[in-house]
Amino acid sequence: MAKGRLILVPNTLDFGAVAVLQAPDLGEVLPLGVIRQAARLTHWVAENAKTTRAFLKRVDMVVPLGRPLQDIVIAELPRAAKGRPAAAPDLTPLLAPALQGIDLGLISEAGLPAVADPGAALVQAAHAQGIVVTPLAGPSSLLLALAASGLNGQSFAFVGYLPVDAAERAARIRELESISRRAHQTQLMIETPYRNEALQAALLGHLQATTLLSVSCALTLPEGFTRTDTVARWRASPSQLPTDKPAVFALLAT
Amino acid sequence: MAKGRLILVPNTLDFGAVAVLQAPDLGEVLPLGVIRQAARLTHWVAENAKTTRAFLKRVDMVVPLGRPLQDIVIAELPRAAKGRPAAAPDLTPLLAPALQGIDLGLISEAGLPAVADPGAALVQAAHAQGIVVTPLAGPSSLLLALAASGLNGQSFAFVGYLPVDAAERAARIRELESISRRAHQTQLMIETPYRNEALQAALLGHLQATTLLSVSCALTLPEGFTRTDTVARWRASPSQLPTDKPAVFALLAT
Repeated sequence: MAKGRLILVPNTLDFGAVAVLQAPDLGEVLPLGVIRQAARLTHWVAENAKTTRAFLKRVDMVVPLGRPLQDIVIAELPRAAKGRPAAAPDLTPLLAPALQGIDLGLISEAGLPAVADPGAALVQAAHAQGIVVTPLAGPSSLLLALAASGLNGQSFAFVGYLPVDAAERAARIRELESISRRAHQTQLMIETPYRNEALQAALLGHLQATTLLSVSCALTLPEGFTRTDTVARWRASPSQLPTDKPAVFALLAT
Repeated sequence: MAKGRLILVPNTLDFGAVAVLQAPDLGEVLPLGVIRQAARLTHWVAENAKTTRAFLKRVDMVVPLGRPLQDIVIAELPRAAKGRPAAAPDLTPLLAPALQGIDLGLISEAGLPAVADPGAALVQAAHAQGIVVTPLAGPSSLLLALAASGLNGQSFAFVGYLPVDAAERAARIRELESISRRAHQTQLMIETPYRNEALQAALLGHLQATTLLSVSCALTLPEGFTRTDTVARWRASPSQLPTDKPAVFALLAT
């Protein structure tokens, strides 16, 4: 029997930022071909079953679901421990539908699954089982922030979260600035929204005045913005960052 | 007078892979909200005016253009020299429409503008002029390849092209493997399509047997595929890679 595929379905970037009833028509923010494929999937793996059902309701408003929502099977990924995926549990049981010939969707809370979220281990397990992996195109807050930054897009790195401890964070910021200077490589990072201001302060405190710093918030939403400036200019007038919306920080040492 | 914005418009990933007449309906591969915004823009900066007109014809089939195609102004970016954008010419003249209050589109040959292409310098010039930069969501072959690879999506770097000289390329491959091991960071790279096989051979020749290698080709097209395997398995059975379609290579040292 032919195996099913693991289909990576992008989510919008508006989760948590707007109530579902105010959310834009899904057809405005995802390609119709993606919505069509999402509508026919009967089995899913997700970070969160509840928000996936909300997503499927939005799908249904554009392309009717292939079967009633209550008959769609949604399994949740185990909560990921921070750090190396090597420590993750065996995810092969979650792939059972695909091994039985049924296409399986993977979706995250926002943007592309398996990028800056725990889905990568499931994708790796799929490859190990000989399951074909098909990624569908959708928004990525990291790449939108990079594009909008104007910083080097020919060499860039995403490094996730910085340490919370102040001394470790300062050392990490200096290390990233040094890597950026040596490799002429943009360094991208994220932070939990309520710590956005603290990360901005740490970056302004420890980066050199000529380094370029870019901050993007709430991209694809009406209030979204990107600011790119030298650290000297940021210091002269810091931005007020939202405490409830994710931001992407990018630096390029010159 | 209020300035216009610089709007970053994503392109599809099917350029060069399909004839325009066979190309999928743009509504299948880009969000309707993006197509709607592209349709109303009257001024563009592009890598190539001819392919941008072909793109706008596809836009017009979904959302009628705000004015006739021949009245839409398309300026071309200067051909970028490889290397540091610091060497680039002053791009401010290209921003004249935005400085005069007209929204200006930026588009590349494939995927998101200013990522792995010469548009970043224009975006940086826009920030320097106080022009608001608005990125629209669309496909990125790099991020699709990363998501589909199953390799670490919590820390990754895109490093562009490797050196063509064999000895330099071998040294660079070993350097990237060493960075990947130390930082547990996925390293992504691209190659000119006719050198895909040569890059595969070099990677298989110089990486360690336990390193994970992922190759993605033609993602979002029917013939697209992603293979992730240890270097040992790749050596046992290399893949035949297309010589006319771009591939993304990713490695993670374990």
